[in-house]
Amino acid sequence: MTVPPELADVVGRIAPPDEASRAAAMQRQARLTKPAGALGRMEELSVWASGVQGRCPPKPFERARVVLIAADHGIAQSGVSAYPPEVTAQMVANFLTGGAAVNVLARQAGATVRVVDMGVSVDVEGADDGYKVCHGTRPIDIEDALDAEQLAACLRAGVAIVDDEVDSGADLLIPGDMGIGSTTPCAAVTSALLDLLPDVTTGRGTGVDDVTFLRKRDAVAAAGERIDWSTDPLHVVGAIGGADLATMSAMLLAAAARRTPVLLDGVVSCTAALVASRIAPGARDWWVAGHRSSEPAQRFVLDELGRGPGVDLELRLGEGTGALVALPIVQMAIATLAEMATFDEAGVSDRGD
Amino acid sequence: MTVPPELADVVGRIAPPDEASRAAAMQRQARLTKPAGALGRMEELSVWASGVQGRCPPKPFERARVVLIAADHGIAQSGVSAYPPEVTAQMVANFLTGGAAVNVLARQAGATVRVVDMGVSVDVEGADDGYKVCHGTRPIDIEDALDAEQLAACLRAGVAIVDDEVDSGADLLIPGDMGIGSTTPCAAVTSALLDLLPDVTTGRGTGVDDVTFLRKRDAVAAAGERIDWSTDPLHVVGAIGGADLATMSAMLLAAAARRTPVLLDGVVSCTAALVASRIAPGARDWWVAGHRSSEPAQRFVLDELGRGPGVDLELRLGEGTGALVALPIVQMAIATLAEMATFDEAGVSDRGD
Repeated sequence: MTVPPELADVVGRIAPPDEASRAAAMQRQARLTKPAGALGRMEELSVWASGVQGRCPPKPFERARVVLIAADHGIAQSGVSAYPPEVTAQMVANFLTGGAAVNVLARQAGATVRVVDMGVSVDVEGADDGYKVCHGTRPIDIEDALDAEQLAACLRAGVAIVDDEVDSGADLLIPGDMGIGSTTPCAAVTSALLDLLPDVTTGRGTGVDDVTFLRKRDAVAAAGERIDWSTDPLHVVGAIGGADLATMSAMLLAAAARRTPVLLDGVVSCTAALVASRIAPGARDWWVAGHRSSEPAQRFVLDELGRGPGVDLELRLGEGTGALVALPIVQMAIATLAEMATFDEAGVSDRGD
Repeated sequence: MTVPPELADVVGRIAPPDEASRAAAMQRQARLTKPAGALGRMEELSVWASGVQGRCPPKPFERARVVLIAADHGIAQSGVSAYPPEVTAQMVANFLTGGAAVNVLARQAGATVRVVDMGVSVDVEGADDGYKVCHGTRPIDIEDALDAEQLAACLRAGVAIVDDEVDSGADLLIPGDMGIGSTTPCAAVTSALLDLLPDVTTGRGTGVDDVTFLRKRDAVAAAGERIDWSTDPLHVVGAIGGADLATMSAMLLAAAARRTPVLLDGVVSCTAALVASRIAPGARDWWVAGHRSSEPAQRFVLDELGRGPGVDLELRLGEGTGALVALPIVQMAIATLAEMATFDEAGVSDRGD
């Protein structure tokens, strides 16, 4: 696979998180007043935070930023969702007035939300649409979702958005998504890249009935056949993905290049992570899974990318909500490593062995 | 089973949470700007919160209170733990100076911690020991952990502690625990009440090796045989439980009687919940599971009590830590129900069916 010019610079700059800080974090964990390993997955999160921050103990994330990519999908016109396509634009308006789940959960978790319109069918007043590449993609079962220039523009946008956010002080990025029909391209891309049958990657999305599910699965299958199950990640994301997946894939690579950690959300951000990891495998060390969603494609990607997150609340909303639910757990993991007393400090006996 | 005089009053006062508030919460959930059910388990938590608070929408818990019961177990002298028994008192001192995981997580989650010494072997200066019934229990594989008067005193203490906390304004209780060896009585009580073999209820606790594990399992088996696998919950908790389990069982019943919700933690609080639910089955509607721990007995109890919590971070620390990790999720669930816009308010199209 040839890395395209839009991504060559960021891919070339991706380096691993700080190993010395990770090692120091593991050593410190072993001295805290608790049985070794008793904080389970939280210990791993604290070590990850040390590595990506390059310091031990790590500090709480203070500028967590949801970047919500909104885009429409041509395939939604074929009736693959329980909701009509106009809901994407209506929800963008809802995000801008602060009434959606992502707004409420971001306030609770101490994060802020930026909504970027990369391809909503209807322009929404007040939306951040300077990078917009289309008004909905073309239907992936019939033709390519994005043409070459649209794909390149999405990649440039993803890099520019991350540069802008990191320059503005973001210390943790959360990719969010909104787009009626978006789980269909996710299933198609996951099937193509992981060589999985559409029957297992296609999910119920927003909650479709059996007839809609079969139509959705057939669309995923038609998309895969149309590209002859290509495994070139950028060809796949341009042909049977969408503006959201393309932009987010570039964002995930750019975040790694900028040494800025990412908390993954549901099936859209995880599918983008799959695409990005095929372009630069080392980038995944900068990302951590937030939650396990109900969408099967997300579960396959989590298995592919590594250890699961330990949070499975059966969420299937997207927007960044699953990552926001996990954010307090990440902050708590950091706090335990930073603030707990060690055996020596507290005068507590360690085990004999 | 006869309810003993110490619990007769609280058991008589236990009534269900408010059904009208639950119904209103379910109706409101269906109108929020998201696909029905897309917030999964969080929707159920919001409905639970509405019921136990008797209001819709519910409000954030403002006075969450960890009540950490510290007690020693005679069986720990037989080498069933990776840590020496004196660690219980050392950890109580650590709690009082704020250096333990429970202190750090409570600060993060906006909760406060009360540590009650019900039976620590060594008195700790500054500890809240007004209800203390013993300096360690007797070893459960040989004799009854508590005599009749000690058991009655634990039950009275559990009721008094909850009355005190609720009168002081606590709106959510989290039972925490500390006591080297405590998972052994938990496994014994769970085996007795759920008719399970010691092989499946005995876990690794703080992380014991194979030899210690076998010794622990044999102690669980000996305890069960000694009481002839009795299923009378209070007989079981007095004979093969301990001061922590007895006190916490009464606390859980008293909380239900005071219409005060409880967020359960790990194996100790869940075993107490099993005991309490055998005394008054309706009390469980006032409790919600916080997390799934690594200890097998806890998993059996969660299956018995109902739906799992959706959080499995492989924690096995106790103290209340698993519940504290879940507390922000409960608060987020409440916030979504209280603050999200409805379809009508936001002008978003609902699905057609």
